[in-house]
Amino acid sequence: MVEKRKPIPVGEAVSRVIALAGSGKKERVHIEQSYGRTLAEDLRALHPVPPFDRSPYDGFAIRSKDSKHASKDHPVTFTITETIGAGFVASKKVNEFEAARIMTGAKMPEECDAVVMLELTTQTSKNGQESMSIKRAFKKGDNISFTGEDTKEGDVLVQKGTKITPGVVAVLATFGYEYVEVARKPLIGIYATGSELLDVSEELEPGKIRNSNAYMAAAQITAAGGEVRMLGKLDDELESCYASIREAINQVDILITTGGVSVGDFDFLPAIYDKLGAEVLFNKIAMRPGSVTTVAHLNGKLLFGLSGNPSACFVGFELYVRPVINLRLFKTKPHLLKVKARLSKDFPKPNPFTRFVRSKLSYEENGLFAAPNGFDKSSAVTSLAGADCFIVLPGGTRGYAEGDRIDVLLLESAEGSEWPWT
Amino acid sequence: MVEKRKPIPVGEAVSRVIALAGSGKKERVHIEQSYGRTLAEDLRALHPVPPFDRSPYDGFAIRSKDSKHASKDHPVTFTITETIGAGFVASKKVNEFEAARIMTGAKMPEECDAVVMLELTTQTSKNGQESMSIKRAFKKGDNISFTGEDTKEGDVLVQKGTKITPGVVAVLATFGYEYVEVARKPLIGIYATGSELLDVSEELEPGKIRNSNAYMAAAQITAAGGEVRMLGKLDDELESCYASIREAINQVDILITTGGVSVGDFDFLPAIYDKLGAEVLFNKIAMRPGSVTTVAHLNGKLLFGLSGNPSACFVGFELYVRPVINLRLFKTKPHLLKVKARLSKDFPKPNPFTRFVRSKLSYEENGLFAAPNGFDKSSAVTSLAGADCFIVLPGGTRGYAEGDRIDVLLLESAEGSEWPWT
Repeated sequence: MVEKRKPIPVGEAVSRVIALAGSGKKERVHIEQSYGRTLAEDLRALHPVPPFDRSPYDGFAIRSKDSKHASKDHPVTFTITETIGAGFVASKKVNEFEAARIMTGAKMPEECDAVVMLELTTQTSKNGQESMSIKRAFKKGDNISFTGEDTKEGDVLVQKGTKITPGVVAVLATFGYEYVEVARKPLIGIYATGSELLDVSEELEPGKIRNSNAYMAAAQITAAGGEVRMLGKLDDELESCYASIREAINQVDILITTGGVSVGDFDFLPAIYDKLGAEVLFNKIAMRPGSVTTVAHLNGKLLFGLSGNPSACFVGFELYVRPVINLRLFKTKPHLLKVKARLSKDFPKPNPFTRFVRSKLSYEENGLFAAPNGFDKSSAVTSLAGADCFIVLPGGTRGYAEGDRIDVLLLESAEGSEWPWT
Repeated sequence: MVEKRKPIPVGEAVSRVIALAGSGKKERVHIEQSYGRTLAEDLRALHPVPPFDRSPYDGFAIRSKDSKHASKDHPVTFTITETIGAGFVASKKVNEFEAARIMTGAKMPEECDAVVMLELTTQTSKNGQESMSIKRAFKKGDNISFTGEDTKEGDVLVQKGTKITPGVVAVLATFGYEYVEVARKPLIGIYATGSELLDVSEELEPGKIRNSNAYMAAAQITAAGGEVRMLGKLDDELESCYASIREAINQVDILITTGGVSVGDFDFLPAIYDKLGAEVLFNKIAMRPGSVTTVAHLNGKLLFGLSGNPSACFVGFELYVRPVINLRLFKTKPHLLKVKARLSKDFPKPNPFTRFVRSKLSYEENGLFAAPNGFDKSSAVTSLAGADCFIVLPGGTRGYAEGDRIDVLLLESAEGSEWPWT
């Protein structure tokens, strides 16, 4: 059976998938478990920052009007009432010509409206009574960090859909978010197909190779913020394959299969999608590797038929599955971040399909460069190990030369692109 | 008590710390738990790739000598013996003028030494006997993926100290690494100090702020690949602080405290290090924020006294703690990746100390730019949320202008620098 399939452009394929991405769900986690998750709500300031007028320096809190006549020739002397450390509040009223010694971050006494830095004062002690004197006037508001100066109550500090970094954790803690509303991780099942597959624990046999795609896709799911359900290997028989997949769909949010999507005699997936009554969104994309990537949709669930070739499987995941996970995590830029770089190698051979070349980005003195990471056949699993980006070479009638400016999609950026496809 | 401290350069401080970083330990994890960990041994190819001579196309396996006289005018016809799918091996011998139909990835029959692509053949069927004919000669070795062509047995494919990405997982699975030797996560304890600190679950009180540093540092440890032990808040009393810290040192590999390292009346850490008999590596660094970052060493353990100011705490962790974690994870480039970018804002005010400005990197058409992320005082916790890099502004007598080429340290890169300090 050699079926004729019509390839569609990558952007069109991505559009069809994300139109059916579904929506995210929320759950609450303790702040100590929040790192790496994604905010399911805007993070708002629950109080102003600073929460009270405070001193930005070690110095003295005074009533500015008492300093009005201070000058080089006529210093004004203040009696020191006490020392206010950070975390403490004034215990005594600051009266006329009195000052409180105040530490960085401490709350201003009610009566005071200016801070004099330590180094602008002369301190004296007489009969156990400490005083300080100043030689210039201070104005109301001098050297005070005012309530809400950094942040007003209610301000959105971090937007919904943002990955929780250590900095975001700090902001959550500051505002007392002991529990955090995060996106629930979508549960994604993985079935490997292919009679040639051995499990990772099995000895090699003539003609067979080990199943690397399921473990790789599991790591990709984890990296993207999803939850993995390893479902094992599908049998070699259409009826039992069909039954296994029909059953799996009910257990997960999204189902991935690897292999079985080509047009060979042993490629069952097209027949299974048909038997399930699933709507096939596409079964051929104008891209290399991964042209046979097939996506179907059934009862609100997406079924990703990724290629059995490791690199094609990898690319198919990053281009089609990852944005769906990202949308379920409320991310607004769900696609791989696209940046400009220069090619560090010739690609003389033209190709009608858009190529995604597993590559390594380098930050050189004269800009960003991207170099293909070794061997680039869809079967070369070893080239995946060091890749941190894809070079995108649009299909057409010409090849590409070293130094050409090209688009690069970053695999490990927390940032994304809104729409990298033209 | 105003103690005079002598600041040392950042590079010198980092040198002193990493000289005492200690060494990493190994542990074995299942491949399904290996993503995100770090390889504790070089990943070697345990067999060649491909593991056997195989067909890179769907086609026919032949003995090349049988095709020697094939030409446009005199096609040669081969009797088809069987179909060899991927994962299967030939069940019949291929004799003179016979061919086996072979699928992509399938093992070559012993007798054959060339593959003819499907599209170069004419297939016929007569009395149930299938044949194909070709119109040109093929040479020994034509269209075969030879054993070891991608990778030889024993080749180092990924080096010790590499973070396990999905691509590395694929390579591990390919070679049957069901269990993987990874670096054990160093166990890092965190104590918060400061009378002004409330826990995240407590209501704000006049003069107080919530403890954000411990939660932030915990997330930084997790991000760096360490294991966190939250130890809580230290009491406000020297003796009990001392006892708590002495006890904690025995429970962890590395101890972090936040706060208490300034020269204020309530800053106990210098006295505690003294009482413990710890060697203080430095207590003042020529950097902003974080100049009071103090590091001590006792019985082979590093004690990091990070600043109580959130941004200073954050920077202190990334510059001094993270490389120690990385070295324990066998990483050979343990420091933040340094890249060149352009400043997108003026910094007119000169500063004698090197500044680390919490910033956001952007990949523009004309190169990399870095923009300070909002408010930049050491107390401004909100500026940490969106920062993904530090702009490095070396100390000196001049300020910096928009467009200046500056060094940037990336916070979220899996790559590192060997030595970003001059």
